[in-house]
Amino acid sequence: MEENRKVPAVVIKRLPRYYRYLGELLKQDIKRISSGALSQKMNVTASQIRQDFNYFGGFGQQGYGYNVEYLYNEIGKILGLNDGDTMIIVGAGNLGRALASHSNFEKRGFKLVGVFDNNENIIGSTINGVKVMDIRNLEEFLADNRVDIAILTTPKRAVQEVAERLVKGGVMGLLNFSYAELSLPHGVAVENVHISDPMMTLSYKIKQAREGHSV
Amino acid sequence: MEENRKVPAVVIKRLPRYYRYLGELLKQDIKRISSGALSQKMNVTASQIRQDFNYFGGFGQQGYGYNVEYLYNEIGKILGLNDGDTMIIVGAGNLGRALASHSNFEKRGFKLVGVFDNNENIIGSTINGVKVMDIRNLEEFLADNRVDIAILTTPKRAVQEVAERLVKGGVMGLLNFSYAELSLPHGVAVENVHISDPMMTLSYKIKQAREGHSV
Repeated sequence: MEENRKVPAVVIKRLPRYYRYLGELLKQDIKRISSGALSQKMNVTASQIRQDFNYFGGFGQQGYGYNVEYLYNEIGKILGLNDGDTMIIVGAGNLGRALASHSNFEKRGFKLVGVFDNNENIIGSTINGVKVMDIRNLEEFLADNRVDIAILTTPKRAVQEVAERLVKGGVMGLLNFSYAELSLPHGVAVENVHISDPMMTLSYKIKQAREGHSV
Repeated sequence: MEENRKVPAVVIKRLPRYYRYLGELLKQDIKRISSGALSQKMNVTASQIRQDFNYFGGFGQQGYGYNVEYLYNEIGKILGLNDGDTMIIVGAGNLGRALASHSNFEKRGFKLVGVFDNNENIIGSTINGVKVMDIRNLEEFLADNRVDIAILTTPKRAVQEVAERLVKGGVMGLLNFSYAELSLPHGVAVENVHISDPMMTLSYKIKQAREGHSV
């Protein structure tokens, strides 16, 4: 099912959306869906969906629609969900706390194994069953525990140094909420999350609506 | 500068990224940038950038590069930033608190005017200088104050009802972090934020790296 040819970034970005939507269909006990119905929901053309799926071998006949459960599981495998990836959170402020309690991470198969901070008042407290550790003990922890993903919710000024320590300690992927651009060795996977992007999109849509255009 | 023809959703989604990147260039005191350099940074082709900008009239000659400050300001106007949009946050849990203190919202011209919750222990406390109000007083508040945007960080089960009340009270746009799909009248702008999407993308990239593919 997997192919070696490079999948475009835009296709990869759509995979989580497909996965989410298929999960919702499953909950509603829907067994099959046509590429047409899927396309309407996803706001991409049916031919785009077929093209996307062709990168991964196709997933079955379009005339009869897709088998929802099969498609959901296959896309989950492609995304590497339920591979037992472990994660830590660095920065136990409000955002770090919110993410530590984010049930969707666990549901997608990611396991929170540690939270780190440098604030003496927070170190030793427990968030969602996980103890907040001193950032000074990061190297020791990484030597003893396999950590696949680190979520970065530190202040902007601290993030580059922390990221380098994480990568040195074997962490493969970083989810960066800090708004700083990270400069890291090739091969480290980084996703930057910019919470104000959707806010700006919303602002655009409101402006359009005010000017009488449809949103 | 503005045109009535419908701008594709993918182009709109790229505007905040252009805006952010241009803002960084400005900070570095860079005056001009070629579409080639911009394209490399943005990970889209130079011709895509020109096509994107053509929806808004073009923004100047490609041969001499773009004027960074001019482009930044124009895109900001298109996005409706600094229009004085007001926002409230409904749900003062960890995520709501994190967003209330999110300096980038203010920097983009959005003004936080209220925070609402239904928890007696939180109501009356202050977050980032704004008092947490009882959600039962939402209608009264909306009658007395213009609110353009509401950020929804309530539990999933509560969000549809709250969203309907907000729309009835004149709120034009909703930034929905609740993971519930909202069903609302046509014309209400909604942006759904799914924090686990970039996490899944990261998982995909890590899996690719493990299998020896480039990320």
